[in-house]
Amino acid sequence: MRILIKNGIVIDMVNKEPKVKDILIVGNKIEKIEHKIEENADKIINAENKVIMPGLVNCHNHCAMSIFRGHSDDLELQEWLNNAIWPVEEKLTKEEIYYASLLSCIEMIKTGTTTFHDMYFLMENVAKAVEESGIRALISRTVVTEEEPRTRLKEAEELYLKYNKKANGRILVNVSLHAPYTCDERTIKKCVELAKKYKMSIHIHLSETEKENKDIKEKYGITPTEYLKKNGVFEVKTILAHCVYLSSNDINIIKKENTGIAHNPISNLKLSSGMANIVKYKENGITVGIGTDGAGSTNTLDMFEEMKVSAYIQKVLNKKSSCINAEDILKMATTDGAKVLGLDKEIGSIEEGKKADIIIINIEKPHIKPINNIYSALVYSAVGQDVETSIVDGKIIMENREIIGIDEKMIMDKCQKISDKYFR
Amino acid sequence: MRILIKNGIVIDMVNKEPKVKDILIVGNKIEKIEHKIEENADKIINAENKVIMPGLVNCHNHCAMSIFRGHSDDLELQEWLNNAIWPVEEKLTKEEIYYASLLSCIEMIKTGTTTFHDMYFLMENVAKAVEESGIRALISRTVVTEEEPRTRLKEAEELYLKYNKKANGRILVNVSLHAPYTCDERTIKKCVELAKKYKMSIHIHLSETEKENKDIKEKYGITPTEYLKKNGVFEVKTILAHCVYLSSNDINIIKKENTGIAHNPISNLKLSSGMANIVKYKENGITVGIGTDGAGSTNTLDMFEEMKVSAYIQKVLNKKSSCINAEDILKMATTDGAKVLGLDKEIGSIEEGKKADIIIINIEKPHIKPINNIYSALVYSAVGQDVETSIVDGKIIMENREIIGIDEKMIMDKCQKISDKYFR
Repeated sequence: MRILIKNGIVIDMVNKEPKVKDILIVGNKIEKIEHKIEENADKIINAENKVIMPGLVNCHNHCAMSIFRGHSDDLELQEWLNNAIWPVEEKLTKEEIYYASLLSCIEMIKTGTTTFHDMYFLMENVAKAVEESGIRALISRTVVTEEEPRTRLKEAEELYLKYNKKANGRILVNVSLHAPYTCDERTIKKCVELAKKYKMSIHIHLSETEKENKDIKEKYGITPTEYLKKNGVFEVKTILAHCVYLSSNDINIIKKENTGIAHNPISNLKLSSGMANIVKYKENGITVGIGTDGAGSTNTLDMFEEMKVSAYIQKVLNKKSSCINAEDILKMATTDGAKVLGLDKEIGSIEEGKKADIIIINIEKPHIKPINNIYSALVYSAVGQDVETSIVDGKIIMENREIIGIDEKMIMDKCQKISDKYFR
Repeated sequence: MRILIKNGIVIDMVNKEPKVKDILIVGNKIEKIEHKIEENADKIINAENKVIMPGLVNCHNHCAMSIFRGHSDDLELQEWLNNAIWPVEEKLTKEEIYYASLLSCIEMIKTGTTTFHDMYFLMENVAKAVEESGIRALISRTVVTEEEPRTRLKEAEELYLKYNKKANGRILVNVSLHAPYTCDERTIKKCVELAKKYKMSIHIHLSETEKENKDIKEKYGITPTEYLKKNGVFEVKTILAHCVYLSSNDINIIKKENTGIAHNPISNLKLSSGMANIVKYKENGITVGIGTDGAGSTNTLDMFEEMKVSAYIQKVLNKKSSCINAEDILKMATTDGAKVLGLDKEIGSIEEGKKADIIIINIEKPHIKPINNIYSALVYSAVGQDVETSIVDGKIIMENREIIGIDEKMIMDKCQKISDKYFR
């Protein structure tokens, strides 16, 4: 399949200045980016006056949690987990996880995300949703401390063996430790062994709340980051979700290791966890991407909303409006996010030879015009609904806001029924 | 004109539980709300599976500032005003203010706002945009300290005499003092006299930044609120924009007077001004509405975004997720907003006899479903683009996202040209 996108305003995330260009996609890759391309193609997309940019990278999600949307707002993290989420999660079936994940994939595609990073269980069903929707994902089974036999570690390994690089490479598998407060030292060490065995990265929630830091300090006498370090987690590539509360020593540890942070501003605010100082982390050379967290806490999976809120809170937290700008934020949501996931050689920017993960945005809207700065327009004004077309792995998966090959209404109805079963 | 809206899920902001009902609009008023209405109408709207709710009330705006969108992000308030905004504002023509205001009216209508409160200059041109777009507004000329003759106070009076209650009552006029730091005591007193003469309310920016509080304290030895009190501002109804930094005594003054606060969370974050503790103000019995501020600082005029961010920051500021919930937030954006503007007898809820200012929202969307709590769905999941139809003063001004009788593209192009003239 050859797709030719004509005359779009290309924000490639490599060159600062936007340029009007044509882009030729052949197979799953970006073949050519030039001012004018006059070649045959199976499909020509006219992107005149529209922005062409890399698809957004959502660095932290639990996509099956869409069925919890709006069920238990206004609770703090631990109360929310213990009373609202975990008792229901125990009962979820494979089919329910599949439909809930498919709904999330649809929502993500419709708001510009082309790659997401997921942590949950019964992950074969998430993989199925990824495969069918056409989105790209790095997925993992969550591991916590449990009695022998180590079911979860075994499932994590099976997931890797069965699904890594499936769907033409759109599905990749790593492994998740839930959090320092749910994983004992033995579990962590076993998980690191597994990650090393298959060269997987480890995804973990870290220092999400002050309570977590306090509890770990009381139990082990060290910070959660030090606890991970002590147990070898940083011996493999690590993706750290949240990091709302990091000490100077934590920052020193993280900046020296092969790590990246998945910042989830809305979830952290809504669960009243706090505000991560990502400007400080970035000043220390740490790579920071943006995630939505699950729809159970954030209520949407819209990276445009996360981008806005990321910028807002940094400005007020650092009492300095210039501490971060729209271009920095867009970089976090694309190239830096790809780097956090270890996928920056393949995705995150529009460059010849990279995978064709591209979104086309209609900027001729009354909430965007006039445009004085294209990065500002994309970050502070545009919304997820402005994304018109999405291409992942060289395939059009949404065109003019219609998801290709999926009955959206049926999926929404299914998910409403699942939700009603548990919460009505 | 008789409009019958059938089978919508009515969130009237009076009854907590949503009910499926029909609504009959006759002239500019809500005539009847019943389970089934079988009467003739000139227009029948099928609202099955859609939410019918009061239009949103934007309590603080400078709608001509849309031409500044994205021009000067990442600056603090004073730098932004002194270097980026004021030098250009001096040059703006009547025609430019008209087109910029019309663009803002379009944006507001398309994101669910039916009433806004505006402070600017050359306000006849804002009035013209309000009249033509069909939206409702309370508008005012901004007064600051100036040499005799007191041009601005005179203009404020003329605006009132010429435009108050015009456009079938959709245009109302009050008067604005810019801020304590730009208005000397004589100017404030003169403005209070004017407000008393015509029973107008006074709109003012108050305690937006720590710097303002510090400067006023240095100059007068009292807080900005005390300064207003001393000069008689609270002898008339007052609408206080921002109030990021209020002392206990300020809160005591405000709660006893005929005042309301217009909270502008995104503008306050983006200009790194701070986070107003509206939960504390509400606990003290102060009425708080939500505003967008101008698109020059906020970059959009979308009350759905403001609602979300309002909730997020209260939860983290008060370290308590339950400190405010989705229903509280929706009330702020509707009934409480109307009360802040002194319009709660006419708008802000769906009740028989009230003005017909109603929006219809499509909630069958993958970022909203499944719905477990309708208030949560509207505040935490829905976005401005989900608003399909808008009725103001009994007239349909947007239907299926098409603004009636306005060439959106022409207005956007005009505003781009104006913006290019100043900033390219």
